[in-house]
Amino acid sequence: MSSPLEPGATVGVFGGGQLGRLLAIAAAKLGLKCRIFCEKADAPAFDVASSHVCAPYQDDVAVEEFAAQCDVITFEFENVPADALRLAAAQSSVFPPPEALRTTQDRLSEKTLMDQLSIPVAPYSSIDSLSELEAAAKTIGRPAILKTRRFGYDGKGQVRLDGNSDLAASYRAIGESPAILEGFVEFTTEVSIVAARSRDGEMVFYDLAENRHENQILAETKVPATVDAEVVSLARDTAAKVGDALDYTGVLAIEFFHCSGNEPLLVNEIAPRVHNSGHWTLDGCSVSQFENHIRAIAGWPLGSTERHCDATMTNLIGADVDAWPTYAAQPGLSLYLYGKREARAGRKMGHFTRLKPR
Amino acid sequence: MSSPLEPGATVGVFGGGQLGRLLAIAAAKLGLKCRIFCEKADAPAFDVASSHVCAPYQDDVAVEEFAAQCDVITFEFENVPADALRLAAAQSSVFPPPEALRTTQDRLSEKTLMDQLSIPVAPYSSIDSLSELEAAAKTIGRPAILKTRRFGYDGKGQVRLDGNSDLAASYRAIGESPAILEGFVEFTTEVSIVAARSRDGEMVFYDLAENRHENQILAETKVPATVDAEVVSLARDTAAKVGDALDYTGVLAIEFFHCSGNEPLLVNEIAPRVHNSGHWTLDGCSVSQFENHIRAIAGWPLGSTERHCDATMTNLIGADVDAWPTYAAQPGLSLYLYGKREARAGRKMGHFTRLKPR
Repeated sequence: MSSPLEPGATVGVFGGGQLGRLLAIAAAKLGLKCRIFCEKADAPAFDVASSHVCAPYQDDVAVEEFAAQCDVITFEFENVPADALRLAAAQSSVFPPPEALRTTQDRLSEKTLMDQLSIPVAPYSSIDSLSELEAAAKTIGRPAILKTRRFGYDGKGQVRLDGNSDLAASYRAIGESPAILEGFVEFTTEVSIVAARSRDGEMVFYDLAENRHENQILAETKVPATVDAEVVSLARDTAAKVGDALDYTGVLAIEFFHCSGNEPLLVNEIAPRVHNSGHWTLDGCSVSQFENHIRAIAGWPLGSTERHCDATMTNLIGADVDAWPTYAAQPGLSLYLYGKREARAGRKMGHFTRLKPR
Repeated sequence: MSSPLEPGATVGVFGGGQLGRLLAIAAAKLGLKCRIFCEKADAPAFDVASSHVCAPYQDDVAVEEFAAQCDVITFEFENVPADALRLAAAQSSVFPPPEALRTTQDRLSEKTLMDQLSIPVAPYSSIDSLSELEAAAKTIGRPAILKTRRFGYDGKGQVRLDGNSDLAASYRAIGESPAILEGFVEFTTEVSIVAARSRDGEMVFYDLAENRHENQILAETKVPATVDAEVVSLARDTAAKVGDALDYTGVLAIEFFHCSGNEPLLVNEIAPRVHNSGHWTLDGCSVSQFENHIRAIAGWPLGSTERHCDATMTNLIGADVDAWPTYAAQPGLSLYLYGKREARAGRKMGHFTRLKPR
């Protein structure tokens, strides 16, 4: 085990969105410098980082130079090209481990891992052709969701199959990409757990969060989730199993369907990174998910995940952000704006958190 | 009254120390960009600012160019040269108003204002010569403190006069600068109030903090202060009077001696800026002193100063910071390191806050 990063060391982050921005601020809190790699100009994280590189992930020279100047490297989104990560790993330590990223950035390998760990998921089939889709639609039934194996987020790369959906058209709609067909799950609520795992395998867990999505994008997170204590334990056990299996370092989030049947929690998705449903920790805990991610990858002891207040986090999506003066004027509301210029539909522009002492 | 800054606008800050660093992070939270002016290379605030200028305050061209690129300008320390501020004010809005800075950066004009507002202070005399010092030492008695009128902080520019002190030597020790002689006050505790005043005169107040100094540098702040409710009211009233008198915009801190006599609070010092004794608000409140300063100068509504937890803030001075691994490992402690390379004696290197739910 290498020694912890000293204050003044540099944390590299692939990706310059709001998660990178909040990671950079967390690194600064601990006296660490942050270096951002992002292909987009004006990336939100550039504003709060010590330095940045604006180049395509395919620019090997830029990636290598970036990595050589970082004492540890992480990423803020799961679609970092594998080649960039491999090059970076040759220059510096990369956490979470690239192998964990490879597993979780592909829905099929993620579900396969769940099967291996006996962690329940919705019924699914791997789809590599229209005929496989036709067969799976019969086995799994409808409604069902056809999802690309890779590069999906916030509902992108997904098509719902109803009784009368045309299978060929649906398959074309996702670009005939490698996919899975997933049985539709009747859930009571959606919940998620955010956990941090240190380099030496210690794990800490934030309180279970209850999520409400609108148009397949997270709209609101409430903590604590209104579920039984056994469900909370089950979520933690699941995160622990996954963390151990992936030999994970950093923050990891698992989204679950909470169902009323025999299996109260079905894993919906694993995010190998800080997660939108953990933004409440910025205000509700002494150590946020962002800080715990930085602590983990820097080889520092993990911080307490204790929650000092109940919290409700609301996302500002697209034009929602135009109402910022209203939110800024509401007492007791903690507002975050991500510094994005264009409020495109579906784009996460900011969020706010309300606290209630416990 | 000009309209509030839009997200994406630029806040300029004179000074790049830890206060500038925490102001830059607060600006980023609200989607504002931050531009730092500091004459020192490697200033802690550079790491988290969108842009910075490293130049002497005497470089008029650099100051003017800096100011021209800022939508509003503020400062993180009270010894910004008046000329730099005047040049900046010609290009952009400066808050707090330069006149408030002029008053509070001179101990004599600050005390004169207190007299005008009938706010009690320790007995004092203006000193411009050794003979004035000799006369004042008789009137005020000893022990007493000889303080330069300007450029003093953390005990710098101060000499204590005891019964056997040589007055001429003491006067030389402060460079024979314009000074005041201040009667020694027997206090029970030192307390401070941090308040924010908006562009249109609204004021909000954080809870009164109790401070313990070591070697004339703040060592620890505890909130709430263990004082009667009337003392809290008196501190707020004092801050309100001072804020109104200075036509102030931004965060302002007042340090008091809390005494057992007829006058329970004597003003010790007014800081026209965010203040070390308000660092606990980063963890104990939804909206910190740094965010409220940015809100005030940006023309935004002030945020709530409500405290969700009790808090104790401890400064890491000089070599204290070497124990960072110990502090990082203590559960429930929120650690801040300022990114300063050299842990010189007396230098503020970081702080930590412990919260206790109320």
